[in-house]
Amino acid sequence: MMTKEDVTAMIISAKKQAGLTWEDIAEKIDMSPVFTHSASMGMNAFPEAKAEALVTALSLPQEAAAVLAESPNKVWEQTVPTDPCVYRFYEIVGVYGPTLKALIHEKFGDGIMSAIDFEMSVTREPNPKGDRVKVEMSGKYLQYNAW
Amino acid sequence: MMTKEDVTAMIISAKKQAGLTWEDIAEKIDMSPVFTHSASMGMNAFPEAKAEALVTALSLPQEAAAVLAESPNKVWEQTVPTDPCVYRFYEIVGVYGPTLKALIHEKFGDGIMSAIDFEMSVTREPNPKGDRVKVEMSGKYLQYNAW
Amino acid sequence: MMTKEDVTAMIISAKKQAGLTWEDIAEKIDMSPVFTHSASMGMNAFPEAKAEALVTALSLPQEAAAVLAESPNKVWEQTVPTDPCVYRFYEIVGVYGPTLKALIHEKFGDGIMSAIDFEMSVTREPNPKGDRVKVEMSGKYLQYNAW
Amino acid sequence: MMTKEDVTAMIISAKKQAGLTWEDIAEKIDMSPVFTHSASMGMNAFPEAKAEALVTALSLPQEAAAVLAESPNKVWEQTVPTDPCVYRFYEIVGVYGPTLKALIHEKFGDGIMSAIDFEMSVTREPNPKGDRVKVEMSGKYLQYNAW
Amino acid sequence: MMTKEDVTAMIISAKKQAGLTWEDIAEKIDMSPVFTHSASMGMNAFPEAKAEALVTALSLPQEAAAVLAESPNKVWEQTVPTDPCVYRFYEIVGVYGPTLKALIHEKFGDGIMSAIDFEMSVTREPNPKGDRVKVEMSGKYLQYNAW
Amino acid sequence: MMTKEDVTAMIISAKKQAGLTWEDIAEKIDMSPVFTHSASMGMNAFPEAKAEALVTALSLPQEAAAVLAESPNKVWEQTVPTDPCVYRFYEIVGVYGPTLKALIHEKFGDGIMSAIDFEMSVTREPNPKGDRVKVEMSGKYLQYNAW
Amino acid sequence: MMTKEDVTAMIISAKKQAGLTWEDIAEKIDMSPVFTHSASMGMNAFPEAKAEALVTALSLPQEAAAVLAESPNKVWEQTVPTDPCVYRFYEIVGVYGPTLKALIHEKFGDGIMSAIDFEMSVTREPNPKGDRVKVEMSGKYLQYNAW
Amino acid sequence: MMTKEDVTAMIISAKKQAGLTWEDIAEKIDMSPVFTHSASMGMNAFPEAKAEALVTALSLPQEAAAVLAESPNKVWEQTVPTDPCVYRFYEIVGVYGPTLKALIHEKFGDGIMSAIDFEMSVTREPNPKGDRVKVEMSGKYLQYNAW
Amino acid sequence: MMTKEDVTAMIISAKKQAGLTWEDIAEKIDMSPVFTHSASMGMNAFPEAKAEALVTALSLPQEAAAVLAESPNKVWEQTVPTDPCVYRFYEIVGVYGPTLKALIHEKFGDGIMSAIDFEMSVTREPNPKGDRVKVEMSGKYLQYNAW
Amino acid sequence: MMTKEDVTAMIISAKKQAGLTWEDIAEKIDMSPVFTHSASMGMNAFPEAKAEALVTALSLPQEAAAVLAESPNKVWEQTVPTDPCVYRFYEIVGVYGPTLKALIHEKFGDGIMSAIDFEMSVTREPNPKGDRVKVEMSGKYLQYNAW
Repeated sequence: MMTKEDVTAMIISAKKQAGLTWEDIAEKIDMSPVFTHSASMGMNAFPEAKAEALVTALSLPQEAAAVLAESPNKVWEQTVPTDPCVYRFYEIVGVYGPTLKALIHEKFGDGIMSAIDFEMSVTREPNPKGDRVKVEMSGKYLQYNAW
Repeated sequence: MMTKEDVTAMIISAKKQAGLTWEDIAEKIDMSPVFTHSASMGMNAFPEAKAEALVTALSLPQEAAAVLAESPNKVWEQTVPTDPCVYRFYEIVGVYGPTLKALIHEKFGDGIMSAIDFEMSVTREPNPKGDRVKVEMSGKYLQYNAW
Repeated sequence: MMTKEDVTAMIISAKKQAGLTWEDIAEKIDMSPVFTHSASMGMNAFPEAKAEALVTALSLPQEAAAVLAESPNKVWEQTVPTDPCVYRFYEIVGVYGPTLKALIHEKFGDGIMSAIDFEMSVTREPNPKGDRVKVEMSGKYLQYNAW
Repeated sequence: MMTKEDVTAMIISAKKQAGLTWEDIAEKIDMSPVFTHSASMGMNAFPEAKAEALVTALSLPQEAAAVLAESPNKVWEQTVPTDPCVYRFYEIVGVYGPTLKALIHEKFGDGIMSAIDFEMSVTREPNPKGDRVKVEMSGKYLQYNAW
Repeated sequence: MMTKEDVTAMIISAKKQAGLTWEDIAEKIDMSPVFTHSASMGMNAFPEAKAEALVTALSLPQEAAAVLAESPNKVWEQTVPTDPCVYRFYEIVGVYGPTLKALIHEKFGDGIMSAIDFEMSVTREPNPKGDRVKVEMSGKYLQYNAW
Repeated sequence: MMTKEDVTAMIISAKKQAGLTWEDIAEKIDMSPVFTHSASMGMNAFPEAKAEALVTALSLPQEAAAVLAESPNKVWEQTVPTDPCVYRFYEIVGVYGPTLKALIHEKFGDGIMSAIDFEMSVTREPNPKGDRVKVEMSGKYLQYNAW
Repeated sequence: MMTKEDVTAMIISAKKQAGLTWEDIAEKIDMSPVFTHSASMGMNAFPEAKAEALVTALSLPQEAAAVLAESPNKVWEQTVPTDPCVYRFYEIVGVYGPTLKALIHEKFGDGIMSAIDFEMSVTREPNPKGDRVKVEMSGKYLQYNAW
Repeated sequence: MMTKEDVTAMIISAKKQAGLTWEDIAEKIDMSPVFTHSASMGMNAFPEAKAEALVTALSLPQEAAAVLAESPNKVWEQTVPTDPCVYRFYEIVGVYGPTLKALIHEKFGDGIMSAIDFEMSVTREPNPKGDRVKVEMSGKYLQYNAW
Repeated sequence: MMTKEDVTAMIISAKKQAGLTWEDIAEKIDMSPVFTHSASMGMNAFPEAKAEALVTALSLPQEAAAVLAESPNKVWEQTVPTDPCVYRFYEIVGVYGPTLKALIHEKFGDGIMSAIDFEMSVTREPNPKGDRVKVEMSGKYLQYNAW
Repeated sequence: MMTKEDVTAMIISAKKQAGLTWEDIAEKIDMSPVFTHSASMGMNAFPEAKAEALVTALSLPQEAAAVLAESPNKVWEQTVPTDPCVYRFYEIVGVYGPTLKALIHEKFGDGIMSAIDFEMSVTREPNPKGDRVKVEMSGKYLQYNAW
């Protein structure tokens, strides 16, 4: 049986050979680069039509489409990530977590930002003192139920 | 000696009595709500002029200004945060960490987003299907040095 | 300042003196026993009207109402709970977690059960071989967003 | 020797080829979908007659029946599960664990809900505001022995 | 409010002043020494009559009886116990755990020994090569439910 | 080189083919079922004569005898065991550890029960309310040295 | 009630005032410095006569003798010790643990060195290249029982 | 490339075939049994001449000499060792660590025993009450620098 | 696809055959030994020209150059390193971390030393009392942003 | 008894009142700022003459001198430090640890850099692209003993 790991390897290989960026691939299937990369890595499921589009765009075997559309098992092995690029985001959650919580409560009430009905983008922000990474997240507000 | 914990307690108490929100306080000292809350909680240091402004705005004892301007020791005790509102951000780092890394490398090169030369905002995004929490982060891109 | 811990202690004391059960208290404020206990322990926020009702029902100081309505910081200190009564539920998540996931995916699609828009009840199920504990959970299905 | 892992792989493969759901398979052997999935994953042991029935229903090799009926070693590797669909149940145990304990003690006495003499179901609850996942657990009450 | 910790301290103090052993106390209330010690330490709940008997036997304040009969929250803080006398039992579980499991499955079927409907004794076994500690455990066999 | 893992696999395979229980095998070599299983799993070393007897009884290759008599490296990978049958024993150590310690000190003095000069049995105790698992442990008392 | 912690504090205070070393104290009660320090810290129990001798030698309150003779609860809080002087011994166990095990098995058979029937000394070994710390341990060999 | 693991396996195999003990091998190359075992296991580096001697003594391939002389990466995977023979040494560090520290400070000053400029031996101490394991460690005293 | 692990193995093999040191290799490509080793181990990315130079210097396959220039995933598996040579640096961070922080704040303000815009060297410092290891680190000061 | 924590608090208070920096204090007692801060925090012991000098310089009570000269117990509570300024050094050990080890072995042989016979400085390095933090460490090389 073909697994998500198999398909991820095929995508990376096809991407290298074709000299494409994740932005290029995302554009070909008309999705965001964040979701395209995440689902290609097996951390999200492509909607069926998008899975088909990706298989066509990168000439993957037909069987790969079904695999790309399966619900993944989301596993990360490092409780505290070691790679500096990822650790900085962990650090932001540690330092600003209580602040995010306080402001969400202040602006919305007793609830949270969904990480499921959620989207995110990464863009390059030109800046004379050095360009900046801009990360924008948008998640549906979910109110705690009281019953 | 007055500690950061003491001043945090004074701020929360003054805020309650005056019926202010964090947005209100932030506006009074002309800073962002995120930084205002974070530094009030003792996780960041106020610039001296802002510390003075906060002391005036909330009628805190004068000694508090110096304490608010001290470099804090940033400590969080839960490696994996349990509060659902904070956990969701931890989950986003777990699920999307490799994606953030891949796209930063694709758009900038071999480097990271700074969590020090960094800013963030939280806003309420009206939406007919339910309002959304919007979180925007901007951090300076830092290139790995090769020597 | 009165804290959630203070109010929890007041509630337990008032409950003992009045000889009430959690069911009794829940009935007085017309909420479920699960939510009533959970919010009394400081793990959930009472809606304002219910907080007022509880203050009246148990003759708590008026200030307690605002505290009961504040968004709590949900903290548990044992990653693996040691009390046998709680551990068994942890064990159920360990043994049946993948099954819950597979059946949710099969019945709904790629998504999860919300733990926020959520409710639960505990009832006693008479049974000639020994009565049974019945736990019923109901959470809104949340579909992963693809963008 | 054929292992539980081998048989799990055979079942998943047969299920895919036949285009069956877990509900379909459960119906064929007249068991619940929860137990059918769990035992197929190697986290529970099928009663011998049910193991035979499953082997017949999915045309597995005869040797698989004995393997399906063996007592499994129940292992989970993530103390805190990372997959969001499973994590939410862990979170429920963290938030509501003390409440479940308090209400069981109130309704039954000093004891616990068994996770061994236990059953569970997952159903889809239609709801105009969005369908809901309903999880029902029933476990025998076990009284602590005092001797 | 009087807590279980308070009552434990009273019992230890009364025991010292009266020069009693745990065996003596157990005999006075006609329970086993294991259960008597465990419930006195706050790790089990005395049946009401026994709580009354203990209060009388040790001249504790009357309020203590209700406390001794409350369901305890069973907490141990060391995942791996450090005290050598307790560690050896942890080691036995590590070394012989799979053996206990295999023999229970062989003698009974797919199930476990209950730690709730359970009792235990400790006795001194005279032996010319050095006396031995005899620990006897008896727990009800619980069969896994298949549904 | 033949390893303990290899020999364990041979024993399990021979046991299945011959339709033997651990009790049967133990009887053939005149040892207890607990020790026979434990040493067959590679967690203890068979005395040489018993290793020879086992090799003969199960028609293992002659080289296996030396392997069965080697001192093993006792490793368990789960600090907290997840399998419910083994976890219950871990729970007993957590709940009753301080009690075992107190009673050993009361009956013997300042010392411990040896887990090395140790033996254990598992038996089925018939009981009209449901049969019980009886576990008996006997370990030499070791007095702390004071020098 | 006087605790072991209380007595430890009294001993340290008396030692400072009298300007004594641990060697001096050990000599006064005719025990080794290792055991004297360890039991004074509450990690071992003094034999009764020695407890009396220590109370006399340091003019402690009479009640302290019984406390010094009680069986202690041996707790260490750092799984990996951070103090460099203690860590080096942990490192030696990590690096040479398999070697100690192999040589004990080679010289004695399948067994261990007791940490209960055990003694240890620390001496200063003059050496022209820099004096050396000599640590000598002696523990009774315990053979694994096979039954 | 030949690795340290490869050479360790060759040594164990040659040792078995030749029927040698670690003491025998150590004698052949005129080193201590502790260091000989440790470096053969890949936890230390043999001096070049000794590596050559070992290769000759055990008829290993010539390439093994260079491997045996390489600086190893010292890794142990169990923070708390589970094997009872090794655990007892961990326990000794836990119980007596503060004592070792106190006596080193008393006899030498503010410093530690080196685990690098270090040696150790294991001997069998005959004793009518049961032979004893004697472990002797000698490490250079290192004084903390103050600058 | 060729991985960073593959190229690391090729470099180590080529280095051994050519009898080169890391200093030699660093000199050939005109980079520091620290960065050369680190990037050869796959913990940093070589600038493209340097990757080409290394491929030429060691006669690696051409495809290796692109691999050496890829952004690595920086992973370390031991939260607390066990190798003594690395542990000592961990210990320095534990002992002197607060001091480094205090002096950076004193000399620069509220900020940190970058580990990204960073370089380091290791040199041998001759000393009559024994040569010394000199480690020099230089990282850009980054000021916390206040917004 | 005055503790190291008490004296640390006195030093910080005296430093604030006198408006001194750590550099100023270090100069007054003719020691390095790194050691002065570290020993003032209770992580190192001042030589007696320096302890006296510090007591005089800051007008501390005379009793403080002996406390400052006592061997400290070096404890850090966060295995992975959370403060960003300290974490970056932890990250450097993670990323460059194997490199430091390889170059020390290449330049010196099989050994380590001492963290005991060790010194360190922090200086501000002017740089037109932004000033840099320079950290210099020097530790005695210690060769592994082979015996």
